[in-house]
Amino acid sequence: MTINLNNLLNSISKNSKIGDFQDLEHIDGLSISSISANLYSKKRDDVVMFYFRNGANHASVYTQSKLVSENIKWNLKINKKRIKALLINTRNANAFTGKNGFKGLKILAENLSQMLTEKQKIDEEKPEKILPNEILFACTGTIGEAFPTEKIKSSIPELIENIKYNQNKYIWVKAAMGILTTDLKPKLAMEECYIGNKLIRIYGIAKGSGMIYPNMATTLGFIFTDANISSTILKQLLKQNIQKTFNAISCDGDTSTNDMVSIFATGEASNSSISSIKDKKLKLFNSSLFNVLLNLAKRVAADGEGASKFITVKVKNCKTEQDAKKVSFSIANSPLVKTAIAGEDPNWGRIIMAIGKADVNLNPNKISIKLGHISIIENGKLLPSYNEYEAADYMKSEKIDLIINLNLGKKDFTSYTMDLTKKYVEINSDYRT
Amino acid sequence: MTINLNNLLNSISKNSKIGDFQDLEHIDGLSISSISANLYSKKRDDVVMFYFRNGANHASVYTQSKLVSENIKWNLKINKKRIKALLINTRNANAFTGKNGFKGLKILAENLSQMLTEKQKIDEEKPEKILPNEILFACTGTIGEAFPTEKIKSSIPELIENIKYNQNKYIWVKAAMGILTTDLKPKLAMEECYIGNKLIRIYGIAKGSGMIYPNMATTLGFIFTDANISSTILKQLLKQNIQKTFNAISCDGDTSTNDMVSIFATGEASNSSISSIKDKKLKLFNSSLFNVLLNLAKRVAADGEGASKFITVKVKNCKTEQDAKKVSFSIANSPLVKTAIAGEDPNWGRIIMAIGKADVNLNPNKISIKLGHISIIENGKLLPSYNEYEAADYMKSEKIDLIINLNLGKKDFTSYTMDLTKKYVEINSDYRT
Repeated sequence: MTINLNNLLNSISKNSKIGDFQDLEHIDGLSISSISANLYSKKRDDVVMFYFRNGANHASVYTQSKLVSENIKWNLKINKKRIKALLINTRNANAFTGKNGFKGLKILAENLSQMLTEKQKIDEEKPEKILPNEILFACTGTIGEAFPTEKIKSSIPELIENIKYNQNKYIWVKAAMGILTTDLKPKLAMEECYIGNKLIRIYGIAKGSGMIYPNMATTLGFIFTDANISSTILKQLLKQNIQKTFNAISCDGDTSTNDMVSIFATGEASNSSISSIKDKKLKLFNSSLFNVLLNLAKRVAADGEGASKFITVKVKNCKTEQDAKKVSFSIANSPLVKTAIAGEDPNWGRIIMAIGKADVNLNPNKISIKLGHISIIENGKLLPSYNEYEAADYMKSEKIDLIINLNLGKKDFTSYTMDLTKKYVEINSDYRT
Repeated sequence: MTINLNNLLNSISKNSKIGDFQDLEHIDGLSISSISANLYSKKRDDVVMFYFRNGANHASVYTQSKLVSENIKWNLKINKKRIKALLINTRNANAFTGKNGFKGLKILAENLSQMLTEKQKIDEEKPEKILPNEILFACTGTIGEAFPTEKIKSSIPELIENIKYNQNKYIWVKAAMGILTTDLKPKLAMEECYIGNKLIRIYGIAKGSGMIYPNMATTLGFIFTDANISSTILKQLLKQNIQKTFNAISCDGDTSTNDMVSIFATGEASNSSISSIKDKKLKLFNSSLFNVLLNLAKRVAADGEGASKFITVKVKNCKTEQDAKKVSFSIANSPLVKTAIAGEDPNWGRIIMAIGKADVNLNPNKISIKLGHISIIENGKLLPSYNEYEAADYMKSEKIDLIINLNLGKKDFTSYTMDLTKKYVEINSDYRT
C-alpha cells in the first residue's frame, strides 16, 4: 500500500458524515495480516486474515438470500463455536461457483491450518494443532466467476509472514481497507466498557457499498472483543443487536449472497464468567456492542455507492415495529425519494407516496412529517408556516433527517440510507469493465 | 401545440423498442378535447376530456397505495357505472391536498356538467341533463401542491369549444400527449375484433414514466371501445386482464397515489347482449383487450424515465405464479441488474443475487438462465460453451430478454421494465426545479 495512512485518517475524519473516526489499538489474543494476492489488476490488499492464536469464541449471522455463497456454506458446515482464524478475500464472491468454489475453500483451509500449525510450533510455548474446520471464510466481490484458489493459496506464506501480533491504528486501517470493494472509505468503530471490574474492548470493521439491504446480516461486518463470553451468548447478543443496526440500513434494496456479520471473543480480558444473556454484568457490554454495530452500519450507509448525503428515516408511533420498519424502508428504498434528496429538493410529496405504498394501515389525518427541525405536515395537513425556501436550505446539508409520525401507537423504527446519484449508476454500470 | 405530428408519428414508429405505432381512428359515441389550462410554465396541452355524448359503461381499477389522490376518492364516491365524461389533468396530482383538493373537483364537476348540458341542448336531438356525478377524474403530476381549480375551471369553455366529435390519428396523439408528464412519447394502442357479426374497436392511451410499479393499476391507462358490454362485465374483464399487463410492469418500484386504469364502452357497435364473462362471444374481445393493455403497458415500461433499453424478465416453471412473479420483479426492480444492463454488461451474477433475495424456495442445481438466445446457466452450472463476448454483443441491443427457468413446476410470470441510467437520476433530481 502506497497510501499515506496519516493523510487518509485525517481525510476520513474530516469528511465523515457520521462523526469522527476512532483509533483502534490492540486486542489481546488477536493477530492481523493483510496482503495482496493480486486478485485485482491493480495491486492492493485483497486478502486479510484475523488469527486467534489461542482461539476465539465465535458467532455469525448470514444473508437470508436463498442462493448463498460457498464460503457461507463452508461456515455453516464446519459449525464451529471456537475458531482459530478468519480469512477474508475481496474481488471474488465465491457465489454460484459450485463444487469447485467449495473445494477451493477446503484446499485453502487445509493449507492455512497446516502453516499456522507450523507457526505455532515456532512461536508458542504450548503449540496447538490447528484444524481446517477451525478456519472461517468471508468472501466479497463478483458473483459467478471461478474462485481464484491458486492465487490465494500461493499468497498464504506471505500472509503468515506478515502476521502482526500487536495492532495499532495503522494495522487496523490497512485491514479495513483490505476488505473493501467499491467502498471509498475504510469503516472502523470501537467502544470500551466494563464487565465486572475488567475493562473490555469491542472493535469492529465493516465493508458495504452495494447490494446493501437488510434481511439478517447485510454486507460484511466483523466484531472483535477480548471479553470472555461463550459462543451461545455471543450468538444471542449478535442476533438481538443486529436488528436495529445492520438490519436497519439500505443502500439500494439489493441483498447479497455473501452478507455476514461475525463476532469473535478471545477471552483474554479474563472477566468473570457470564452465565446467561440476562446476566446484569452484560448490560454495559450489550449497549457497547450495539453502539459499535450501529456505528459501523451507519458508516456502510454513509459510504453507499455514489452517496453524497447520509439519510436517517425515523418512523415513530406506529401500531407495530413491523409497520414502522415497513414505512421506514419504503422511504429509504424509494428511488424517487432518494433522487429528490440527491437533487436537494424538499419534495415531501414523494415521502407521502412512499408512506402510501408501504402497505401499512394508516390514518392520513394523523400523519406528521418533519425534515430535520422543520415541520411540514401536521395531522395530515400542510402547515401554513411551512417555508419551502427554509426546507431547500436544509436539504443542502450532508445529513438529512426525515421524521415521520403516524400517531397510531408506540412503536418506532429508524433506518439509514443514502441518496441515489448519477455516480451510483456510473459505478454499477462500470463495475466489471 | 407547435409540434409537427407527422414527424412525431414517424419518429415514434422508428424509435419504438416495442414495435410499430398504430393509427387510431374513430369510436362511435366518443368525443375528445385537449387544451392548455396553463398548468405548466411552458404552454402545452395539460387538460384532456373524453366526452361520451350518450354515456358509456365504465369500470376502473385503482392504486393499492394507502394514500390515494382526491380524484380517486371522488371516483370511488360517485361510484357510477355509466359515465358522461372523463377529465384528465397533468402537472398536479391532487394528492395530499385535503378537503380543498376534493372540493376543487366538485366545483369542476358542477361546472363541466352544466356546460355539457348546455352543449347537449344545442347539438343533440334528445338532449340529456348531465350530472356532476357522471364526471370521472384522473390527475397526475406533483403530489402535495394546491390543486389549480380556478385555472382548470376557467379553461372549461375552451375545452367545450374544442370538442371533436370525430377522431383521427392526430386527435388521438394530441390527447395522448396531453396526459404526459415526464414521458417522452405518447402511448397509443388498438385492436379490432368481432363480437358476433359486429366489428368492435378497442383503443387505448396511457402515460407512465415514474412511480411505476404494479399493485393493481399502475400509471394512467384509458381504454375506449364501442362494444355493448355492461359495467359489471367490463370490471371483471379489466381485473382479469390487468394482472399480466399493467401489473407486470415496473420502472422504479415506486407506486403512485394516483394510478388508475379505466375502460369505457359506448355500446354504439350494437352487438348482441352479453350475459356473463363466460359468454363465448367475448373470447375474441377478451384477448384483444389483453393485447391493447399489454401493448400500452410495454410502451410505459419502454418509455420509463431515462430508459435506454426495454427489458423482458420471463420466469418459467415455478411452483406457483406468485413465486414466478416474486422472482421476476426481484430482478426487474434490482438497481444492480438494471445498472448492469445500462452498462451493457452481461453480469449474470447480479441476476443470481436477485433470484436469491426473492424469498422463494428454489433448488440452485435446477436453475437455468438465458440471455435472449444465449444459454448461460443450465442446471445450476455455468455452461462451458458460454462465451462472454457473445453475451456482451447481445447486451448492445435495445431489447433485452432475460429468461429464468427454476424447473420446479409449471407456472410462469413475465415482467417488463427498463434499465437504470444516469438520465433517470437526472430527471428525478430536477423534476420540480
